[in-house]
Amino acid sequence: MTLSRSQNRRFLLASRPTGWPEPSNFRLVSEAVPVPGPKEVLVRALWLSVDPYMRGRMSAARSYARPVEIGEVMTGGVVGQVVTSDHPAFKPGDIVEGSLGWQDYAVADASLLRKIDPKLAPIQTALGVLGMPGMTAYFALLEVCRPKAGDTVVVSGAAGAVGQIVGQIAKINGCRAVGIAGGDDKLDYIERELGFGATINYKTSNDLTKAVAAACPTGVDVYFDNVGGAVSEAVFNNLAFKSRIVICGQISQYNLDKPDLGPRNLRYMLTNRARMEGFLVWDWRDCYPEALRRIAQWIKEGRLKYSEHVTEGFEKTPEAFIAMLKGANLGKALVKVADPE
Amino acid sequence: MTLSRSQNRRFLLASRPTGWPEPSNFRLVSEAVPVPGPKEVLVRALWLSVDPYMRGRMSAARSYARPVEIGEVMTGGVVGQVVTSDHPAFKPGDIVEGSLGWQDYAVADASLLRKIDPKLAPIQTALGVLGMPGMTAYFALLEVCRPKAGDTVVVSGAAGAVGQIVGQIAKINGCRAVGIAGGDDKLDYIERELGFGATINYKTSNDLTKAVAAACPTGVDVYFDNVGGAVSEAVFNNLAFKSRIVICGQISQYNLDKPDLGPRNLRYMLTNRARMEGFLVWDWRDCYPEALRRIAQWIKEGRLKYSEHVTEGFEKTPEAFIAMLKGANLGKALVKVADPE
Repeated sequence: MTLSRSQNRRFLLASRPTGWPEPSNFRLVSEAVPVPGPKEVLVRALWLSVDPYMRGRMSAARSYARPVEIGEVMTGGVVGQVVTSDHPAFKPGDIVEGSLGWQDYAVADASLLRKIDPKLAPIQTALGVLGMPGMTAYFALLEVCRPKAGDTVVVSGAAGAVGQIVGQIAKINGCRAVGIAGGDDKLDYIERELGFGATINYKTSNDLTKAVAAACPTGVDVYFDNVGGAVSEAVFNNLAFKSRIVICGQISQYNLDKPDLGPRNLRYMLTNRARMEGFLVWDWRDCYPEALRRIAQWIKEGRLKYSEHVTEGFEKTPEAFIAMLKGANLGKALVKVADPE
Repeated sequence: MTLSRSQNRRFLLASRPTGWPEPSNFRLVSEAVPVPGPKEVLVRALWLSVDPYMRGRMSAARSYARPVEIGEVMTGGVVGQVVTSDHPAFKPGDIVEGSLGWQDYAVADASLLRKIDPKLAPIQTALGVLGMPGMTAYFALLEVCRPKAGDTVVVSGAAGAVGQIVGQIAKINGCRAVGIAGGDDKLDYIERELGFGATINYKTSNDLTKAVAAACPTGVDVYFDNVGGAVSEAVFNNLAFKSRIVICGQISQYNLDKPDLGPRNLRYMLTNRARMEGFLVWDWRDCYPEALRRIAQWIKEGRLKYSEHVTEGFEKTPEAFIAMLKGANLGKALVKVADPE
């Protein structure tokens, strides 16, 4: 079976943003569908993922991964369908996940693709709860922060793809989850639907430090940080003895011309003998099967829910990405490109 | 044997400083020598320790220990001599160390005193290399940072009581020590006498980040922070992959009216998957004997040196304390009160 082919739409990085990205930072081109070589697989995109880390790849600054070059296709996770395959592990029609970029078609080395079982869960969950965001929540919380039943676990960006899962895994582990997000609809959702014990709207709070104190009367045992900035400062002011902090993201800082200014809070780390660690999910890739198995089981048991924020149409990917950076999404931000054939 | 008694000079906390402490924050009084109760020990001070942590005790702010109250004697470590003892473990003439405060005479519960062997080392080392600063250097470096031979270990406040020892213990463990301090005399000393591999004068450097980069061409594997502020920021900008940071002190921040402003550097923790922990030496008190034995051995072998900055005369204690906060000392800042009898 060979699926239909058409032109290959691609979003290239046109320029590097200063501050917030704009649609003009991306250039839409239409090229010939690439031709796979020996042992390679041609994949057609069905779902694109838009994630905060992509903002980092648009900058030339040193980071944990090389930046996207001007004129290169934008990087990103994709769930797609195999069109042709010269590798025995994949056959046309298979659903796969891989970092294939913002384009309709990509040629991939088979070793970089993960086969997805469409009977197990909706295929796009391979970009969310059963993908990178789920793995991030699982390992950063359980392996870095090592929560104990009874801990108060605060998560920033609590209504996002990672934050929603963090709070629920905390709860499954006997902890009390406190979520910080912007927007009462988001807070309602994570409190009522996901079972967070308390929530804080950072956009409307007059005094974030006091709000965290009120939500965490015995202090913050674990802080899962997705955002940085003033939200983190307020949490730092409420650390408990021997608290643990994991830095998974700093989305509040990604679109600033220069790093934010603000009080330093290392003193609170000292007085509470707190521990803080930076986290990158890729370091845990050898352990993904364990996490996937457990998360899938929790979903099946109804103990872990997820929500998706879907934008329809490939050409809207830049807008979906920028809206996600601005916090428009509840749960995993996705772009739906095509249905499987 | 009963040693001579006189009036008891005491420095009380007269007022809480705003910003830098001043001599007027302390009040010198002369009172009757206290009378010990059953099982108690009366100790006459020979050496007083002045340390950065005391600045914290002068403030009413929440910290790891309760503040000194207005009108109370200033807190502090003392090496003294037993005058009278109603406890079998101590006899008059014994040299002891304990947190007895800024006063000539103190009555202490025997359980809070440590007996010092004057034949082992000069008795005042019980306040320095064989006391709290030595224990801090040993446990914060070896147990929290877990250095490996070949690591680049950067220490701020490198010419102080803790910093000098950190660099030398790093070297003994096969690491390269890089010291940051203010003053070329200090840097000369730690490089030539103590064997630091490189040094940085934070007061004269035009670009601290570049200076750290030049001194640490493969990045900073371990950062032992005594100072915080701009010095720490420069080190953060040069973290190596899987680097470890211990927050032992933040002396640059202690005398500010409000916390310093500056760029946040959590992003570097994320990209390098660094780990940071706050440290308080008291948490390791059950392990002190191990550290004391090893440090004493290293001193005996000539592998670990220490220097002292001695102020003569009890009445100069406030000035000695303030000068230490301003960085006047090379090595352990001490006040000599009396000779043993």
